[in-house]
Amino acid sequence: MTALREHIEAVALVDHHAHGCWLAPGDRSRFENALNEANTEPLAAFDSGFDTQLGFAVRARCGPLLGISRHTDADTYWQHRSGIPEPELAERFLQAAQVCDWLVDTGFAAGAAGLDEMAALGAGRVHEVVRLESVAEEAAAAPGDYAAAFDDLLWRRTRNAVATKSILAYRGGFAGDLSDPALSEVAEAAARWRDRGGTRLDDRVLLRYGLHRALRVGKPLQFHVGLGDRDCDLHAANPSHLLDFLRVSGDVPVMLLHCYPYEREAGYLAQAFNNVYLDGGLAVNHLGARSANFIGRLLELAPFRKILYSSDGFGPAELHYLGARLWRAGLAATLARFVDADEWSQADAVRVVDLIAHTNARRVYELG
Amino acid sequence: MTALREHIEAVALVDHHAHGCWLAPGDRSRFENALNEANTEPLAAFDSGFDTQLGFAVRARCGPLLGISRHTDADTYWQHRSGIPEPELAERFLQAAQVCDWLVDTGFAAGAAGLDEMAALGAGRVHEVVRLESVAEEAAAAPGDYAAAFDDLLWRRTRNAVATKSILAYRGGFAGDLSDPALSEVAEAAARWRDRGGTRLDDRVLLRYGLHRALRVGKPLQFHVGLGDRDCDLHAANPSHLLDFLRVSGDVPVMLLHCYPYEREAGYLAQAFNNVYLDGGLAVNHLGARSANFIGRLLELAPFRKILYSSDGFGPAELHYLGARLWRAGLAATLARFVDADEWSQADAVRVVDLIAHTNARRVYELG
Amino acid sequence: MTALREHIEAVALVDHHAHGCWLAPGDRSRFENALNEANTEPLAAFDSGFDTQLGFAVRARCGPLLGISRHTDADTYWQHRSGIPEPELAERFLQAAQVCDWLVDTGFAAGAAGLDEMAALGAGRVHEVVRLESVAEEAAAAPGDYAAAFDDLLWRRTRNAVATKSILAYRGGFAGDLSDPALSEVAEAAARWRDRGGTRLDDRVLLRYGLHRALRVGKPLQFHVGLGDRDCDLHAANPSHLLDFLRVSGDVPVMLLHCYPYEREAGYLAQAFNNVYLDGGLAVNHLGARSANFIGRLLELAPFRKILYSSDGFGPAELHYLGARLWRAGLAATLARFVDADEWSQADAVRVVDLIAHTNARRVYELG
Repeated sequence: MTALREHIEAVALVDHHAHGCWLAPGDRSRFENALNEANTEPLAAFDSGFDTQLGFAVRARCGPLLGISRHTDADTYWQHRSGIPEPELAERFLQAAQVCDWLVDTGFAAGAAGLDEMAALGAGRVHEVVRLESVAEEAAAAPGDYAAAFDDLLWRRTRNAVATKSILAYRGGFAGDLSDPALSEVAEAAARWRDRGGTRLDDRVLLRYGLHRALRVGKPLQFHVGLGDRDCDLHAANPSHLLDFLRVSGDVPVMLLHCYPYEREAGYLAQAFNNVYLDGGLAVNHLGARSANFIGRLLELAPFRKILYSSDGFGPAELHYLGARLWRAGLAATLARFVDADEWSQADAVRVVDLIAHTNARRVYELG
Repeated sequence: MTALREHIEAVALVDHHAHGCWLAPGDRSRFENALNEANTEPLAAFDSGFDTQLGFAVRARCGPLLGISRHTDADTYWQHRSGIPEPELAERFLQAAQVCDWLVDTGFAAGAAGLDEMAALGAGRVHEVVRLESVAEEAAAAPGDYAAAFDDLLWRRTRNAVATKSILAYRGGFAGDLSDPALSEVAEAAARWRDRGGTRLDDRVLLRYGLHRALRVGKPLQFHVGLGDRDCDLHAANPSHLLDFLRVSGDVPVMLLHCYPYEREAGYLAQAFNNVYLDGGLAVNHLGARSANFIGRLLELAPFRKILYSSDGFGPAELHYLGARLWRAGLAATLARFVDADEWSQADAVRVVDLIAHTNARRVYELG
Repeated sequence: MTALREHIEAVALVDHHAHGCWLAPGDRSRFENALNEANTEPLAAFDSGFDTQLGFAVRARCGPLLGISRHTDADTYWQHRSGIPEPELAERFLQAAQVCDWLVDTGFAAGAAGLDEMAALGAGRVHEVVRLESVAEEAAAAPGDYAAAFDDLLWRRTRNAVATKSILAYRGGFAGDLSDPALSEVAEAAARWRDRGGTRLDDRVLLRYGLHRALRVGKPLQFHVGLGDRDCDLHAANPSHLLDFLRVSGDVPVMLLHCYPYEREAGYLAQAFNNVYLDGGLAVNHLGARSANFIGRLLELAPFRKILYSSDGFGPAELHYLGARLWRAGLAATLARFVDADEWSQADAVRVVDLIAHTNARRVYELG
């Protein structure tokens, strides 16, 4: 088993979905709120972002990189963290993640590092993921026909990108019609949206249009699935509602991100469709000491060539590092159980580690 | 680890949702049917309430308090149990639960001890939880304007109570509109309901009215969530359908009870809203030897200051005791795993035990 | 614990839901596609049916019956397998399953052994399960009144059968009205369907008619539940949508098959209704090294007299064997944990093994 654990510790990861980390200084409330994904309001006075699985995992796993021991109390953690400039924290945590390639969603970037800044941290190659809803907002602000503007922008922005991304989960969810709308419908919807200001796209017709144009681009299309903030109706972010869309999605890889608590439904879809993949980013961090159980559930119906790694790190650089740490620990615990029970051989386990860590991602995103 | 286990064994519990236990004698069929939560009919001739996880747990955990050894067969268990008067069983089991405060829902009390009788058992302080649907039935029977009668009754009944409770899950479920109805709608709905007899409230308008009046009372509002008897459409008792209601619920604590099999959705809501809490009462008893796994799932997304303990005991006093026993055992097993893996420190584990056992409940219900 | 494990290894199983195994030769793509349940298209060029939990379990568990060691690589597995005639593989695997009674669904039998051929393998008694949708297609092809033809065919075909089976999950799912339609509606729907060719029944009225006629036959009615191929909308195969149907199903045993990922909902229904049962067939095979966790979940709310065993084997005879092997291993692991923790006695565990292995099935299907 030592060989398996050593392999998992050292394996290079493709983090196929992350955001920028902070580079600018911030106060403790910024940090504590960043430890809560779902709440869109400031934490209540009686609460602390540290008193969560994620908070405990940050103290346990990230403390040592700040020079303090595991489980040091929250005040001390914050004291040490706030004594180090954000850019130095970013370098330290991202380099420690042992990630060879970061696929960065640039669509939600308020206060976070951009692509060039991420690359400058020297922690691996950086690739762009283009958010469809951002392209739509740019198209709304452009003169002339919306559809033409969207198509043109999408083509230009994705030329050097490795994937597109949809946050439909936050804009009404997956349930309901997701067919390709007629151009006349798109024109009408765009006119209405432009009249309303053309921000925060939630028009269903235009969301559908974006998805189907992304299919034509042909690069992998990422979907936010499951847990997120409370703007999202959790039950509408169940990926089984994507079935009709998947039935017409052809060969374009569709990447189901995060998935909790619908990881079993996502695994089913990854088995049912040659072009569907899944990961457990975001959830792994928030589950902390419970993340190994979750990683086990990712290894159920999904074929092993359809599972990827991501952190979904955003903001505190701890998250970019912690995702990798918890993934290595949880995968090791899960696979060791299979091997100990003689259900899997160790050689097979090592092979599956490589598939999830980087091989599948390199194939799907053509990372070379 | 011994210190952690000893702490969990001895910690005082606030049981923030229970019902009265039996004081009057009954036959074996009453007992066996009480071991099945979901079935509203007598058990089939081929079946036995003892051949369930709950039945096995009763024999294993409660037998010793009757003077018989763990796992003694069902017939012997019943023989010993039926030889002891119910009031003595009630005293014995409730005192053994080591509960300092019982929050008792008086809305479903057929054949069970009332508040004074519960208090007289000498097993801890007793506080009242007022069921909204019972208040509605009283208001339907009162003369004059329904809304005024409801408001007046609710104010008087909750003055000395610590919380309100809704069984909307049993009266149509959470899906659909849960906004505050206009008073004219309330008057019309009340007239229709009074014409039908004014019993077993299932009018949606009046249910919604009750919820929003409860928000004005401002005391914690408990919701039955998830498993219950088959009058409830299980899928409609998924708490994610409460999202729109929670979005307007302000600061009033909303307590999600039981939650199985939607404990992950409930945990998400507890993270998403500063005023949402959860427990695993009822489910812990019915899961018996599987309850430790369930308790682990309660410790996922929910912040640790948002998790409470309850038994949901009703009827056999075994249930009031067993809830506590299984909770102590399951929490110990769960936390020991975190500590053994060095994901949590033992000190943190002890602190979280106290939060769930009583600290959170005392804060939310202002128990002093 | 050795006694418990030995008992589970040797206990005779009733496989209460299986299909025929292959007898005719086939190529590797037939085999690999048979290792994927959900995908209705050929596997992608980059994929392999062997790189799944099921594929790993086949290599680990079935290899030794081909004379090769556990975990031998996929190419070698295929090489040895393809060197043995299918009928010999069928005999070898089915006999090794230690199944005393096979209940065979004859409704989906393309390329698979029929009842007589299954019986001729000498691996246990064979009983028929009649698929309602097949009866409907026969009735559509018969002259005269559809309802009369259906009733007559159903009566004749079920006279010697032990159960009926519905694949409503694949024909629109459980959500929506499932009441008994009026005969006039049936006649109209049948006329429309016959005009369309009378194949692949998906008319809701006729599906409902079939269910209610099956209730009158009174033999156990099996439902495909949860995971299947992608023709099925997974969320519509959630058994909680059967609640209204179950409320009128009387005493006729309703058998919920497979259930993943809705096994918790299925367990709730098995507790809520005296006539509802569940198993975990199909899912156990596809979960491989993760199947023990799943088997644990089957042992939650469902009373122990309501749980059965099945493989749902179809095609490769490995599946008929593997279902039994994984069930024995997973049940042993689950129950050993209960007994080790002193939550169950070993004698109780042995008794529950017998209930699930054969006692419940013999009672429900009156196998004698």
